[in-house]
Amino acid sequence: MSQDFRFLASPRRRCYALLFEHRTRSGRRMETFWIVASLLSVFILFFESSATDLFPNTPDILWRFGLAEAAFTALFTVEYVLRVFSSPRKTRYPLSFFGIIDLLTILPMYIIWLIPSFGTATDLIVLIRLLRILRVLRVLKLLRYMSDAGILWRSLMRAKRKLGIFFGFVAIILCLFGGLMFAAEGGKDGFTSLGASVYWAVVTLTTVGYGDITPHTAIGRMLASVLILLGYSIIAVPTGILTAYMSQELEKGRAARSCQTCLHSGHEIDAKFCAHCGAVLASETSQPIEK
Amino acid sequence: MSQDFRFLASPRRRCYALLFEHRTRSGRRMETFWIVASLLSVFILFFESSATDLFPNTPDILWRFGLAEAAFTALFTVEYVLRVFSSPRKTRYPLSFFGIIDLLTILPMYIIWLIPSFGTATDLIVLIRLLRILRVLRVLKLLRYMSDAGILWRSLMRAKRKLGIFFGFVAIILCLFGGLMFAAEGGKDGFTSLGASVYWAVVTLTTVGYGDITPHTAIGRMLASVLILLGYSIIAVPTGILTAYMSQELEKGRAARSCQTCLHSGHEIDAKFCAHCGAVLASETSQPIEK
Amino acid sequence: MSQDFRFLASPRRRCYALLFEHRTRSGRRMETFWIVASLLSVFILFFESSATDLFPNTPDILWRFGLAEAAFTALFTVEYVLRVFSSPRKTRYPLSFFGIIDLLTILPMYIIWLIPSFGTATDLIVLIRLLRILRVLRVLKLLRYMSDAGILWRSLMRAKRKLGIFFGFVAIILCLFGGLMFAAEGGKDGFTSLGASVYWAVVTLTTVGYGDITPHTAIGRMLASVLILLGYSIIAVPTGILTAYMSQELEKGRAARSCQTCLHSGHEIDAKFCAHCGAVLASETSQPIEK
Amino acid sequence: MSQDFRFLASPRRRCYALLFEHRTRSGRRMETFWIVASLLSVFILFFESSATDLFPNTPDILWRFGLAEAAFTALFTVEYVLRVFSSPRKTRYPLSFFGIIDLLTILPMYIIWLIPSFGTATDLIVLIRLLRILRVLRVLKLLRYMSDAGILWRSLMRAKRKLGIFFGFVAIILCLFGGLMFAAEGGKDGFTSLGASVYWAVVTLTTVGYGDITPHTAIGRMLASVLILLGYSIIAVPTGILTAYMSQELEKGRAARSCQTCLHSGHEIDAKFCAHCGAVLASETSQPIEK
Repeated sequence: MSQDFRFLASPRRRCYALLFEHRTRSGRRMETFWIVASLLSVFILFFESSATDLFPNTPDILWRFGLAEAAFTALFTVEYVLRVFSSPRKTRYPLSFFGIIDLLTILPMYIIWLIPSFGTATDLIVLIRLLRILRVLRVLKLLRYMSDAGILWRSLMRAKRKLGIFFGFVAIILCLFGGLMFAAEGGKDGFTSLGASVYWAVVTLTTVGYGDITPHTAIGRMLASVLILLGYSIIAVPTGILTAYMSQELEKGRAARSCQTCLHSGHEIDAKFCAHCGAVLASETSQPIEK
Repeated sequence: MSQDFRFLASPRRRCYALLFEHRTRSGRRMETFWIVASLLSVFILFFESSATDLFPNTPDILWRFGLAEAAFTALFTVEYVLRVFSSPRKTRYPLSFFGIIDLLTILPMYIIWLIPSFGTATDLIVLIRLLRILRVLRVLKLLRYMSDAGILWRSLMRAKRKLGIFFGFVAIILCLFGGLMFAAEGGKDGFTSLGASVYWAVVTLTTVGYGDITPHTAIGRMLASVLILLGYSIIAVPTGILTAYMSQELEKGRAARSCQTCLHSGHEIDAKFCAHCGAVLASETSQPIEK
Repeated sequence: MSQDFRFLASPRRRCYALLFEHRTRSGRRMETFWIVASLLSVFILFFESSATDLFPNTPDILWRFGLAEAAFTALFTVEYVLRVFSSPRKTRYPLSFFGIIDLLTILPMYIIWLIPSFGTATDLIVLIRLLRILRVLRVLKLLRYMSDAGILWRSLMRAKRKLGIFFGFVAIILCLFGGLMFAAEGGKDGFTSLGASVYWAVVTLTTVGYGDITPHTAIGRMLASVLILLGYSIIAVPTGILTAYMSQELEKGRAARSCQTCLHSGHEIDAKFCAHCGAVLASETSQPIEK
Repeated sequence: MSQDFRFLASPRRRCYALLFEHRTRSGRRMETFWIVASLLSVFILFFESSATDLFPNTPDILWRFGLAEAAFTALFTVEYVLRVFSSPRKTRYPLSFFGIIDLLTILPMYIIWLIPSFGTATDLIVLIRLLRILRVLRVLKLLRYMSDAGILWRSLMRAKRKLGIFFGFVAIILCLFGGLMFAAEGGKDGFTSLGASVYWAVVTLTTVGYGDITPHTAIGRMLASVLILLGYSIIAVPTGILTAYMSQELEKGRAARSCQTCLHSGHEIDAKFCAHCGAVLASETSQPIEK
């Protein structure tokens, strides 16, 4: 894919190399720049959301955060435009996972700035709040630079059929247990509806256990004890499946590392020499993800 | 079993094919229909249970839900009658797991409609509430169409002896720990009876930890800390056993997939060609459950 | 051990066979009798502890429970005396694990009945309460009849050195994290002492999370988040170790089951025929524990 | 390293042998002495922090604890000076992990004793509290004597790259889920800022579940249920990775134990004779850590 452009030195080609390739020195510098920018913009979001508590004596604090936000929006807009411009096939990047994320995290600010009379209608305020919170998706920009996130992704993809079945099964168990507790507690102590009971079942069987909804009758507590003991063994199964697939993926990477001299494979992950012929082994292969 | 009827085209045979076989195109269409019907009837149950909160301005909302319920009861009654009628051996289906579930989810409505004066006696209201909640078992109808649920079932069956022993062991530990905390806290802070203390032990050692019953004395907290650290390692063992059996079942499915050309088996789950002779492999075998 | 007595028919020998051997028909009947008696006596304990709530209209309910308790104490006293009498070496049984349990669960009642003026001094009431709760140890009598509890026991014994090291490590981590949170929250919001902070660390890192002590300051919450993420990965290690040893024990039992015809071993746990020569396999060997 | 000094009998050499070597009888006695001293000093810290509650009738209790503390500080100062004095290369010990810990746990007391007018400025009190709590690091002195802690350390080191990636991934998920819940609950019920929402995500997805911040709206509960089910499978992955590496380390120790007669390796951990030639096996090798 990147081969086609290797010998071109057009600005578009240079842009592409800077933004999409991470193997050249300048590419790696740009990568660091975008990581720092994404992290900073997310940190600023966190401070902004509790600005009035953190800086009670600075009346124009929100205005200052607005300024910083404008700067980041401008920066990420430039990034988006350059990426669209330098992408060899026009429609490819804007329709990719990261293209949509990049757009979703700059668009809301333009929409907010375009709405003139905010502060009046209550529905508008809710809409603006939702649009503003969309910027938290900027944290997903960091995924682009985590090449090893591919292991989790590939494990999820390979396990997705089994996981799908178990989540279906888990959903059935949750409905059943929620219904049973609804019948046992009879609309008291927070078990006010089937929905609340199923929420109780989720919170309980995943062992989160907030304690906002708990059984108080003797029969309810007995039933809850039995359901917890039966259920939490079964509900942990998806975790076990995912971990098993993940260690298979890690194991694969290990098997893939073969000695270049005698072709012996299956070396220890931290081995530096071939256990078979003593030749120096190449360092662990980092597998780029193709999304 | 289904072979006997292959060349008959009686209405009974056609009914059987539609309702019990999922390999023909019409059978698969019926399957989708029954899945959607079951899901819908469960969704309606959820909405019904919090109807007065969700639609406060619609006074006849409960009447509308009653109408929908009547329709679903009629539909599932027709299903039940057809299944009984088309089953080759009359007693087999009504006495099977799904036969009982199917009956239990339609019967309550007829009982409720037959009781004339509800709203008067309090005991009757409790009975009616319990009968109405039985309809949540409709969610179990979906299990019929999850052929892979068999893996969990077979794992449970194979692990049942070990699981039984460990649950016995867990019950002994829970009684012991509950008794110790009852002695330490002495009837205060929710530890009002042995039963409540064992409920505390279940909620604590499974790490649910609602916080409705917690130790408040120094001695109680020290004892609780030790019991938690000792207990939660042991109580997680059934989960580990179940996961181990489950991955064995998954592994079996993999070993079962052998190359039709060179008979080599043990292929990767996502392999498309035989690693030994290069022949195309058949897709993963879906094992139907015989219940 | 039991061989020495095989051909004697003295009453002592018959007692021994009835109480300590579970392979003869009469021995198995006695086993069932003692299991039922132990279970019943524990169930009665549970009802007794919440008697006044369950039966508010029966004023002499506690007297009735006292009667049942006297009957069980008499029965278990007879059992203890017979066991001591029939044990071939006099000191062996009374000093064994089960001998001490058997004594501890009958002795308290005699002590209570010997103290004439209870109800007067407060210290005596606490003592009596503690003595009464000792009876809950009767649940441990059931362990005698769970031959497979040996797998858990052997796993614990084999893993005890590793588990000891990790619990030491866990204790260090808990002290450290408790101290850090005590410093961060500074004696507020339940973090009133180092002990309370370590109790918080136990409840949090085991993911029980009662919520009776939680950080409320921003710095406390940030520190708690980091400690939770770091700590709960490490604290789960003993569970992993125990499960690994346990599955090794289970695997051993499987390897131990060898074909009596061709001596091939390592059969599937549910195999009924030798996979190598087709001969019928003996059923899974139950390994009696020597305690 | 320790070889260089073997045949010297200077006081410095004897000091070194006593403090750093644990293989001689006198070295092992000193080890026990320092373990007991460290444990005692930590226990006293615990009692000191809740002294006024435990001993309400002893007005000079804090003064007595101050005396004990002075004794321990003097003892550990002597230890530190001797260790610096006897260390062959002067800069090596003071800059090592344990050298810094040893210094950090005696320095604060000298600083506190040097500040003359404590009790006046509020900032000083906070500083003194923080300095006093630093003494809890004395619990880390115990790590020096846990040679097997190396298994956990080596596992952490080998898994650190994978763990780093997953913690990065987990951080992204936590920000995303926190942001989503902040949007759903809209600043109510404890979700007052993005930071508080991410704290909620940490507490929830690790299944701690304090219950101090919980969703109360129907949409918030539905979203929370989905996030819990999706998230807690993924967040448990680091635990799985660490456990896998740890069992690999344990397995390595097992493979390392080879028969001295026929060189056969891979014996069972509790094997006493070589399974191949019947020769007596050396006991399990304890691997000293080089830090």
